[in-house]
Amino acid sequence: MGSGSRTKRRIALLLQYDGTEYNGWQVQAKGVTIQDLIEKALEIISKETIRVTASGRTDAGVHALGQIAHFDITSELSLQKLAGSLNGILPRNIAVKNVYEVPADFHSRFSAREREYVYHIYNSAARSPFMMNRAMWVNFPLDKLFFNASLACLVGEKNFASFCKKTSAEDGTIRKILFAEAEMNNELLEVKIRGTAFLHNMIRIIIGTVVDNFRHGRDPEWMHEIIASEEREAAGPTAPASGLYLNNVRYDPPLKSFPSAF
Amino acid sequence: MGSGSRTKRRIALLLQYDGTEYNGWQVQAKGVTIQDLIEKALEIISKETIRVTASGRTDAGVHALGQIAHFDITSELSLQKLAGSLNGILPRNIAVKNVYEVPADFHSRFSAREREYVYHIYNSAARSPFMMNRAMWVNFPLDKLFFNASLACLVGEKNFASFCKKTSAEDGTIRKILFAEAEMNNELLEVKIRGTAFLHNMIRIIIGTVVDNFRHGRDPEWMHEIIASEEREAAGPTAPASGLYLNNVRYDPPLKSFPSAF
Repeated sequence: MGSGSRTKRRIALLLQYDGTEYNGWQVQAKGVTIQDLIEKALEIISKETIRVTASGRTDAGVHALGQIAHFDITSELSLQKLAGSLNGILPRNIAVKNVYEVPADFHSRFSAREREYVYHIYNSAARSPFMMNRAMWVNFPLDKLFFNASLACLVGEKNFASFCKKTSAEDGTIRKILFAEAEMNNELLEVKIRGTAFLHNMIRIIIGTVVDNFRHGRDPEWMHEIIASEEREAAGPTAPASGLYLNNVRYDPPLKSFPSAF
Repeated sequence: MGSGSRTKRRIALLLQYDGTEYNGWQVQAKGVTIQDLIEKALEIISKETIRVTASGRTDAGVHALGQIAHFDITSELSLQKLAGSLNGILPRNIAVKNVYEVPADFHSRFSAREREYVYHIYNSAARSPFMMNRAMWVNFPLDKLFFNASLACLVGEKNFASFCKKTSAEDGTIRKILFAEAEMNNELLEVKIRGTAFLHNMIRIIIGTVVDNFRHGRDPEWMHEIIASEEREAAGPTAPASGLYLNNVRYDPPLKSFPSAF
């Protein structure tokens, strides 16, 4: 076979990371990014220069429970060895949780059908040492029902210009939210939002707005007014990055695990 | 009233801390301890030299969700202000979650009737960035039923010499375990053990032993043999400090919150 057999394979990774110490996903002029470290680890393993593409960038301080990233590689290493080697090289705040052999036309970003984010609010009179860098802390009692009534206003295909960081909307501001609900587990309010795609800072502005509306005694339906205004100023502050988790990215067909994961 | 009114008050704190960066609870020759930081913070607030006593020492790396510590103070600060000031001074990985005015004969250690610990095992093929320093990682599938059958052997008043760090049993090795059960929540095995008091490293040796027995295919009832041997060598390794949490300390009568906690 010779060199002819050394064709490129496309591989996707299921990644988790604690974003606290990183300057986000994407390679930047300044600061260490998750992309940096994964590309360097792959270079050590394969001796190839490898570019890695994620389903979406996560900003500095944002976490991932289910980020998907793909790359092309010539190495014939088994998927299991690849995962093991990456976890051996990567720092402990980044983990490869699964590896998939994917078709050459699979693209972590363009093939993604749905993205799901979770936002954590720690709701207690006093802070928690265990929620440091992991959740937004709100020290007055929130109301899950208010959250759910507010979030319900967002579901559907809408112009979310009010919930977009200014000067960042490259391909318009119309997006489709499929699901948006809050659950309270002890002192943790967990907001889950699923959509086809999101604008820059969209989830964080949504969360900051709902908290702000609640604090100011506004009606949950006020969200409709904010959406209709199509003005960033109509919405509330951007909630901290530390509460945001990229939870899941859905593809069709779904990614298939290699058999050895338990 | 004059200086006669400046009598000492006894105050108890409900504390949470992430023990990762600390050399345990108790003031040591080397390393920063939680006791150090709380005593220094109280001195800043009250201008008094204050000694703080906890319900029990936690070792380096061990966490607390419900540590109780008491001290005497002359300052007439309200409990709420005291809690607020302490949280303002203490680093974010330590938190005062509640403050109680207690009788002069209350003692966080000697008045404690029961202590409850939780041990977290992260059970997944690949590590989790979010469990780093928060749980023991076991990468082969554990069985909750095996854990519960093993833990059941421990309940009762027994000689736990096999589960005690050598040379550390000052007042004998007989202790009473009231409750010991495991629950599996997604990939997190949570073991809860409640007793009147515990020997040094007792919970960590119990956990290390159950994992070891499972890995070696021993019967859960083998725990009876280990207890009967009264030899540290009969038990398994000491599980990591990072998975251990002092969860709750019970007093009779129970500590009463100041009214403003929500």
